[in-house]
Amino acid sequence: MARLVLAALLATTAVPALAGSVDSPDGRIHVTVDTDQDGVPFYTVERDGKAVLAKSFLGFNFTDAEPMRRGFRIEQETTATADSKWEQPWGERQWVRDHHNELAVTMIQPSTKGERHLTVRFRVFDDGIGFRYEFPDQASLPVANIADELTEFNIAQDGKAWWIPGGDWNRYEYLYHETPISSVGMAHTPITMVLGDGTHVSFHEAALVDYSGMWFRRMEGTRFRASLAPSSRGAKVVRKGAFDTPWRTIRIAPDAAGLVENDLELNLNEPNKLGDVSYFKPQKYIGIWWGMIRGDWTWAQGPNHGATTARSKQYIDFAAKHRFSGVLIEGWNEGWDGNWFGNGRDFSFTKAYPDFDIKAVTDYARKKGVQIIGHHETGGNIAVYEKQMDAGFALDEQLGIHLVKTGYVADAGNLISCNADIHDPCGDEIFEWHDGQRSVQHHLAVLEDAARHKVAIDSHEPVKDTGLRRTYPNWVAREGARGQEYNAWAKFANGPGHEVNLVYTRMLAGPMDFTPGVLSLVGSNGQPIASTEAKQLGTYLAIYSPIQMAADFIENLAAHPKELAFIEQVPADWAESHLIAGEVGEYAIFARKDRNSADWYVGGVNNATARDVELGFDFLEPGKVYTATIYKDGPGATYETEARFNIAYDTRKIRKGDKLPLWLAPGGGAAIRLTPDK
Amino acid sequence: MARLVLAALLATTAVPALAGSVDSPDGRIHVTVDTDQDGVPFYTVERDGKAVLAKSFLGFNFTDAEPMRRGFRIEQETTATADSKWEQPWGERQWVRDHHNELAVTMIQPSTKGERHLTVRFRVFDDGIGFRYEFPDQASLPVANIADELTEFNIAQDGKAWWIPGGDWNRYEYLYHETPISSVGMAHTPITMVLGDGTHVSFHEAALVDYSGMWFRRMEGTRFRASLAPSSRGAKVVRKGAFDTPWRTIRIAPDAAGLVENDLELNLNEPNKLGDVSYFKPQKYIGIWWGMIRGDWTWAQGPNHGATTARSKQYIDFAAKHRFSGVLIEGWNEGWDGNWFGNGRDFSFTKAYPDFDIKAVTDYARKKGVQIIGHHETGGNIAVYEKQMDAGFALDEQLGIHLVKTGYVADAGNLISCNADIHDPCGDEIFEWHDGQRSVQHHLAVLEDAARHKVAIDSHEPVKDTGLRRTYPNWVAREGARGQEYNAWAKFANGPGHEVNLVYTRMLAGPMDFTPGVLSLVGSNGQPIASTEAKQLGTYLAIYSPIQMAADFIENLAAHPKELAFIEQVPADWAESHLIAGEVGEYAIFARKDRNSADWYVGGVNNATARDVELGFDFLEPGKVYTATIYKDGPGATYETEARFNIAYDTRKIRKGDKLPLWLAPGGGAAIRLTPDK
Repeated sequence: MARLVLAALLATTAVPALAGSVDSPDGRIHVTVDTDQDGVPFYTVERDGKAVLAKSFLGFNFTDAEPMRRGFRIEQETTATADSKWEQPWGERQWVRDHHNELAVTMIQPSTKGERHLTVRFRVFDDGIGFRYEFPDQASLPVANIADELTEFNIAQDGKAWWIPGGDWNRYEYLYHETPISSVGMAHTPITMVLGDGTHVSFHEAALVDYSGMWFRRMEGTRFRASLAPSSRGAKVVRKGAFDTPWRTIRIAPDAAGLVENDLELNLNEPNKLGDVSYFKPQKYIGIWWGMIRGDWTWAQGPNHGATTARSKQYIDFAAKHRFSGVLIEGWNEGWDGNWFGNGRDFSFTKAYPDFDIKAVTDYARKKGVQIIGHHETGGNIAVYEKQMDAGFALDEQLGIHLVKTGYVADAGNLISCNADIHDPCGDEIFEWHDGQRSVQHHLAVLEDAARHKVAIDSHEPVKDTGLRRTYPNWVAREGARGQEYNAWAKFANGPGHEVNLVYTRMLAGPMDFTPGVLSLVGSNGQPIASTEAKQLGTYLAIYSPIQMAADFIENLAAHPKELAFIEQVPADWAESHLIAGEVGEYAIFARKDRNSADWYVGGVNNATARDVELGFDFLEPGKVYTATIYKDGPGATYETEARFNIAYDTRKIRKGDKLPLWLAPGGGAAIRLTPDK
Repeated sequence: MARLVLAALLATTAVPALAGSVDSPDGRIHVTVDTDQDGVPFYTVERDGKAVLAKSFLGFNFTDAEPMRRGFRIEQETTATADSKWEQPWGERQWVRDHHNELAVTMIQPSTKGERHLTVRFRVFDDGIGFRYEFPDQASLPVANIADELTEFNIAQDGKAWWIPGGDWNRYEYLYHETPISSVGMAHTPITMVLGDGTHVSFHEAALVDYSGMWFRRMEGTRFRASLAPSSRGAKVVRKGAFDTPWRTIRIAPDAAGLVENDLELNLNEPNKLGDVSYFKPQKYIGIWWGMIRGDWTWAQGPNHGATTARSKQYIDFAAKHRFSGVLIEGWNEGWDGNWFGNGRDFSFTKAYPDFDIKAVTDYARKKGVQIIGHHETGGNIAVYEKQMDAGFALDEQLGIHLVKTGYVADAGNLISCNADIHDPCGDEIFEWHDGQRSVQHHLAVLEDAARHKVAIDSHEPVKDTGLRRTYPNWVAREGARGQEYNAWAKFANGPGHEVNLVYTRMLAGPMDFTPGVLSLVGSNGQPIASTEAKQLGTYLAIYSPIQMAADFIENLAAHPKELAFIEQVPADWAESHLIAGEVGEYAIFARKDRNSADWYVGGVNNATARDVELGFDFLEPGKVYTATIYKDGPGATYETEARFNIAYDTRKIRKGDKLPLWLAPGGGAAIRLTPDK
């Protein structure tokens, strides 16, 4: 027996027909909010009068209370508009404009414990929308034990989607699927789509704080629903009193550039709460890392232990010589010798291995003008880490370490926690998701503690990025995707198109510590990487991060002096960034302006299909002549053979408005440095 | 950083290469079980040497213990074979053959709490396979708090799938989607597929006892994974000591008949635990029900209250006259007046409304040789029901009621429970899924209590059927799909093809109380039903149940005397059942032999496409002449217009081997009674 018709038959009070709508500042995006005949709230989204999202329902199930689904009536609507500019301490661009119209709809629902109120707030920008739920402090629902969100995204057209599976074991570390929207399974966000009519959309979330990450579950056809990351504690989210959910975000644009040059999630995050984070400098770095990833060295003690004092000094010397600000050293600390994977019980974040003199190494680095990048691998055991992290960061501060790479290597769903709340004493171990509420709480606790010690964080195997770098600008980068490391582990492991796919999906979330710069183009056992030499350089421009590794062994970097020179020069901090050529899934060429000079850098990455592109230089300053130093795929270059080493160099003068034809090899790329002549 | 390669780098002990396989008795289905390089267990399935399931992983996540995923090695393999026949007290066929080969693989996994053992048992039949996990009582895992099953179904080819969405609000009450397998979202089981090479498969489960129901989640491509129905208590399943999971079942056949004439799940259930259930008689029934569904009458008190003493006697009189054994009476009890939907706090299962004299009605029925069918609507509040159900069944027993329809009308995920375990005292309310472990426990507790009072159960808004009628043969029918009632609520609400889709999906699970026999072919407000007159009769043969309603008002039944005569005659219990013509999604014609006479009945249902079929009668007894009484779509009949009333009658002699051409209208059907001449 269906509830729907029964509700109609029982026919209680009629629902008033109050319904709201709000348009983007340019009037092209139109959002409506209403309730249906059963009082179920829903929203719709149009662009240029065409449906982007058809009727999409809103609501919640709770573990211990009646659902927020039916019987709502709209109580109040308020609108607002805002137009402001704010500055990023570091980033793809220095200034961000926040221009939006807002509609807040407050609804009332009767329940057996009294009336319940819920506000849904929409912010509509020219290039996307965000909405969140706001729960007041109310006696009818003093604690929200959320079983799941019922938020829907009922996409109005089929089209193509680029996505990775959600809810599988390997967290976010997958190659991207390109499928019809109607063939998506359970996906993580950002999930990017090109609708049948060419509209580009990407679904994600902003300001994921004290809540569970949202998976994007296709119900049928092109109708999706939020599915919150599970919790072993019952409710997926537990919140007391008043609270706001993260923003559910939808970038909407006519083309790829409109998706990429889009600050929707940053604008929906709160401003900087930390104040001055100048202890963190955008930088390039090398590290004692690739050797372990390839299997030449070990994290654990033994004859091939990577992190020795001697090797550290060698890397510091190289960094100092080649203008790398940082040296990452992994495997420096106790705990790697046993079965740490997905366990992490034995890690110490203060005790170095006997062959690694941490004081001597950091002293040596300081003397050489280089900073050591610390490393805190937890093996996914956040309980063990939370007990020690403050001591770890205190040690870092004392040693002059201002950037720490954290790691949470454990299968998804198997992060070890041991308390119901981050502030409670530790009880039995429980296993949680990398993107569940408990993990989200953990990551912010780490950031806050690190900030107290003037440490910035680069999280690996993290929760996804939802723009929190605006609020916590010491969260400078993270992994949260399949990085270069996979190229060590099998021939062509990432394939020729992965970097392009990252640009249009994962990178919409924020900086990624992808670790480009494997100039030798081989992984372990000599297995080739599906990349040309030029693509390794183009990746520094395609995949933004304020920390950019040159991942290869220093001997291999030195063996490619011209490429190393480019890596030495390319900035990791930008005044402006533009996607000047590209298509989702195909290729991506960026122009980025150095934040600390008048130089521009142009470059990017290609997928498996060779192509000719013509680059325009409209972004250059008029009247100036720039010397362009060009690194590009040589004739016949292809990732498929030894011709992947085929790189061509060129130098020419370029002015604003010039055109430059460029051939991109299969699995290729390009990088150009533009310096204004004096 | 990926775990996969790290595990390889850390390279502990090599995994022995013990791997098992087992074939079906006819040798055509081949199953292998093995562990991969990381010790992750998997299985594969082939039919006739072609892959049906590619490498499909097995395992578990727990809320409070390391996952059972990696590091397994095979410890022991045992094989067995079985061939037996067993009798159903009632059913589609009297005798069921259980012929299978078995492989049990016991695996060992090291853990921080000691070695853990897990057995996976496969049973391979000629027409499908089942497998389950068996947990021993072990100190290394004394309680299994299962976060989720990791069982995969990695389908080796794309093809078509027929399915309904899992995890949405309306439980199982959906029209079926027909999509590519690679476009399935989250589905319920049974989910039926026709692979590219024509192989017919259907995925489901058997013996769902003290465990959560399995949803069928597509990860990507044609790879699916079990996703257990959630629990508000944290772990989706909590089991102490030794236990077995339900069987995960895969029917595999070359054609539609092979899917339908298939006793896989019944064979995987335990034998009858209740003994004699002869208090239940397969039957047809009428009821005070359609009037409430249409909105003419009410469940609650008032001027249009349906369940009055007078109307009950009128229905009893009609039943007695027209050979209906049962009269269902809904709305007889207190609790319907308030907001019971999804709440159910005020229901009484012993107190009748003042205008319904339950003693007088049941006495009158007894005198007339008719049995009242009781009704226990819970509004989804199993906590309230569990306190009262024994008193309710005791009352039934005392009044001579031996069949009760139960109801759980609440949105999926909002079944109200109030204790962590069915045997614990009641605490705070919690909200659970209709197919979660708590609900599964509840349904068996109801069955067992009902059996003590000699009551059979017809559950509406139930957990799905997994063949438990073998073990608990008082579980005679259920809803668990979109029934005829939807046809009351909107024009063509179920569409012309729904009954056909039910045959090949939901009906693979077991009997459904679909409630055919709306001979007036209209719902509320005169809205037409997408069915011809003949299809209403054909539905009695297409959709099996040991209880078959004639759902219409008795005045409407009486207005169609010829059709009513067929309904009076058609049995609800069969010696044999065969799908003699049909294609998944298209049409379905059954031949069924009465268990209590030499009569055969042939008939079924069509979808929206008119078609000519030729029926064969090879199943008849040789040498005998049968008189066939035929009800079929008249010329020009179609569900789309008033021509849906166009029915043709015919009588002819038929012998074994004869052919009978038959035209099926759009939304049509047919029914034939074959009686051997004396």
